[in-house]
Amino acid sequence: MNTNLLRSVVYIAALCGLYLSTAMLIPAMVDLYYGDDGWSLFAICAAMVGGISLLASMATRGPPPAFSKRMGFLLVNVLWAVFSLVGAIPLYFSNLDLTFAQSLFEAISGITTTGSTVISGLDKVAPGILMWRGLLAWLGGIGIVALGLFVLPFLRVGGVSFFKMESSDIGDKPFARIATFTRAFMAVYVAITLACIVSYDLAGMSHFDAIIHSFSTVATAGFGNYDNSFAAFDSLTILWISTFFMTVCSLPFSILIVLLVRGRLDALRDPQIFVFLGYVAAFALMAGIYNHVRNDIALPLALTHSFFNFASILSTTGFASEDYTLWGPFAVAAAFFATFMGGCSGSTAGGIKAYRFIILFNIIVTGLKKLIYPNAVYSVRYGKQTVDAETQRAVFLFFSAYVFIWAIGSMAMALAGYDFATATSSVITALSNVGPGIGPLIGPVGNFAMMNDPELYILSLAMLLGRLEVLTVLVLLVPLFWKS
Amino acid sequence: MNTNLLRSVVYIAALCGLYLSTAMLIPAMVDLYYGDDGWSLFAICAAMVGGISLLASMATRGPPPAFSKRMGFLLVNVLWAVFSLVGAIPLYFSNLDLTFAQSLFEAISGITTTGSTVISGLDKVAPGILMWRGLLAWLGGIGIVALGLFVLPFLRVGGVSFFKMESSDIGDKPFARIATFTRAFMAVYVAITLACIVSYDLAGMSHFDAIIHSFSTVATAGFGNYDNSFAAFDSLTILWISTFFMTVCSLPFSILIVLLVRGRLDALRDPQIFVFLGYVAAFALMAGIYNHVRNDIALPLALTHSFFNFASILSTTGFASEDYTLWGPFAVAAAFFATFMGGCSGSTAGGIKAYRFIILFNIIVTGLKKLIYPNAVYSVRYGKQTVDAETQRAVFLFFSAYVFIWAIGSMAMALAGYDFATATSSVITALSNVGPGIGPLIGPVGNFAMMNDPELYILSLAMLLGRLEVLTVLVLLVPLFWKS
Repeated sequence: MNTNLLRSVVYIAALCGLYLSTAMLIPAMVDLYYGDDGWSLFAICAAMVGGISLLASMATRGPPPAFSKRMGFLLVNVLWAVFSLVGAIPLYFSNLDLTFAQSLFEAISGITTTGSTVISGLDKVAPGILMWRGLLAWLGGIGIVALGLFVLPFLRVGGVSFFKMESSDIGDKPFARIATFTRAFMAVYVAITLACIVSYDLAGMSHFDAIIHSFSTVATAGFGNYDNSFAAFDSLTILWISTFFMTVCSLPFSILIVLLVRGRLDALRDPQIFVFLGYVAAFALMAGIYNHVRNDIALPLALTHSFFNFASILSTTGFASEDYTLWGPFAVAAAFFATFMGGCSGSTAGGIKAYRFIILFNIIVTGLKKLIYPNAVYSVRYGKQTVDAETQRAVFLFFSAYVFIWAIGSMAMALAGYDFATATSSVITALSNVGPGIGPLIGPVGNFAMMNDPELYILSLAMLLGRLEVLTVLVLLVPLFWKS
Repeated sequence: MNTNLLRSVVYIAALCGLYLSTAMLIPAMVDLYYGDDGWSLFAICAAMVGGISLLASMATRGPPPAFSKRMGFLLVNVLWAVFSLVGAIPLYFSNLDLTFAQSLFEAISGITTTGSTVISGLDKVAPGILMWRGLLAWLGGIGIVALGLFVLPFLRVGGVSFFKMESSDIGDKPFARIATFTRAFMAVYVAITLACIVSYDLAGMSHFDAIIHSFSTVATAGFGNYDNSFAAFDSLTILWISTFFMTVCSLPFSILIVLLVRGRLDALRDPQIFVFLGYVAAFALMAGIYNHVRNDIALPLALTHSFFNFASILSTTGFASEDYTLWGPFAVAAAFFATFMGGCSGSTAGGIKAYRFIILFNIIVTGLKKLIYPNAVYSVRYGKQTVDAETQRAVFLFFSAYVFIWAIGSMAMALAGYDFATATSSVITALSNVGPGIGPLIGPVGNFAMMNDPELYILSLAMLLGRLEVLTVLVLLVPLFWKS
């Protein structure tokens, strides 16, 4: 680790702090507009964070170092740490009486687009705070797509590099290419957000609710303005609108760009889209029919709720229209396992993700064939492409690390005193950036307000691990990383 | 699939049926000795099964086909199916009033050395039946060690082939080598069983209890003669004796043979032994200290129970000395995750197994290093050996298939109406051949008597899948397997 590298990392982090401090002016304006005196909190935090960031950036300015993989890993970790800390500051100094661990948890939950909350009584929270939570999620969504499109493929983490070709083919003009792509992405992200706002608005949400819930929907985050999430709106139309946008934003943004900017429908032929939509439909149909048969709920109503809630879990958003864990044991187990699964690569969704399941499944099938004919050559396929050995290993690495972290985290949560369902589901909902778990405490109608600081730190770490695709963080634990 | 191959498979299966029918004479004699009229049941079953097997073996006699991998896979599956069916017959026709699914479950639970039971009121069951259950487990233990030592390495399933060198180096004289090895193994297996019987006997068990519980201990099965398992004996000495033998029988028998027959202590240097004993100690110490601190249990007593119960779970035996799920949430979660882990290769233990965890862990660490320096060459190691790419893939195949089967099975059990803890733990305890799950129904003081036939079939399948190292069974689902 040379000092020039560390300096550059601090410099870029300071720049991000500067941007985020500017973003604090938005909730300040919201509070001013609604006549809430919380505006001064955001103004003071903006000045404070902005000042420190400005000083830090001036002190660390200098020639950029050659970009190395180590710098990439360090940068990603430091950036998300800075986002988390800066995001937590206004929450900590607000009138919500949050501990530092609670503020940090809430900010990380936003920036990682998880959407778990420690705040009970959201209905009474100042609009500026709600806007700040929504903004953190929305910006976190941008951050994670950028990470997935530009950074992780370069770092070759978890098999994402497999999608380098189609998403961000960094040729001989890397920065020009990235700039064009970033503009296209921002245009699409903003356009989808606007479409979502207008749809929610027309379906009956207040302007403010429409904006915040769109931020949260498009980022597949799950923060809402009400303790009972989408049950507050009591509108099936709103549920279907949300189902649509949550699902769309779990698709690869590289493909959405090609589709929306260039109008190419054939972009949708990516196998992960088919598989992702397939398992959303499968979970939703099974849970809906189960609820219909077991609890005698009219089928259209049952399906509306099952599509909304399972699209919400599988897109890793985490909204809830009602307590689906009351539908019966199958709904509980289905929700639990759906929490592992996640969306597509290069989307705002978390989880293990559809493309990894495709590769895993094909590794298993190919492996079984090889058991029968050891000398035959079978290649593992993703659609029409062959998956190279390195990508297979990367997917495996990710999958096994994911399962181990879940197991160890669950035991830690159990040690802190939580029952089996709460302990195991809290860790996986954090790791997959979903939001709710199962069980009476943190289920779809619960929240994380009852948790003590140590547990909140564990889950905060899990959210960051999941959001940064696990290995990006774990790599810092290898002593080799820190050697010159 | 040619007919010669099928004929030979039926022939070998018929021979095994013949052996098993002979084994039925043992419980018949036990019933005669104790004056129970159940002896006629076993005599009739022995005659019936023996007769059919004899006819089948005569009808299918002929020249052996060239041994192929396909024949190997088919044979292993058919043999275990035959063991299961034949094992179930006396139970089905007994006075226990079991359905066919219950009888099959009980037999499979024995032959796979799982030890889950559908029988409530064991204390009142005829001695012949108890002997039959014990025998099934004891013979199942022999079967599984033979499978692990001779068959699976040849079939290259799940990375076991990695141990071919040290365990069953089938050189130019394969059958002579196997015969010597089999004799040595049987000698060691019988010697350990006798040592266990004598120890239990001296510690205060009745002769009959000592024999049955030794069968069940050495096979790491978990069947007992009492509904409350080892709590019935109320003896800490017996708990420590059992802890010792369960742990020993989770070690590789190839190593026990070298140790006991040739007296070579250095055989114990296999890394999986170190890791297995390490995690037994870690789980037991953590759970014991937790019980001591949380429930104010004297430390020696707490550790005696924690070592016994966690050695029982990790060796995949499944005895219980008390309801350890009452120690607190950590004990529940620890018991649940311990159920995945299992013992060593070539032992009577099931589960994912220590050597796979070593390889998995080293794949992850090597993968992380490769992320930092992609062009450096890092080899995955098992002790001082390098793990080849094929073994790595095999371990991965096993691990991911294991996790997927657990997830799908758990959802099926939830659909059948079981709560989250019961559904998820029933499948993993079956798959890992442990015995008890968690939760009030199938926890350490519960059993499987309340389950309906469809669920028992699901769990029976899971037991067989786990026992045959998953892939051996899954391979039958590949259409390619059945093509000529």
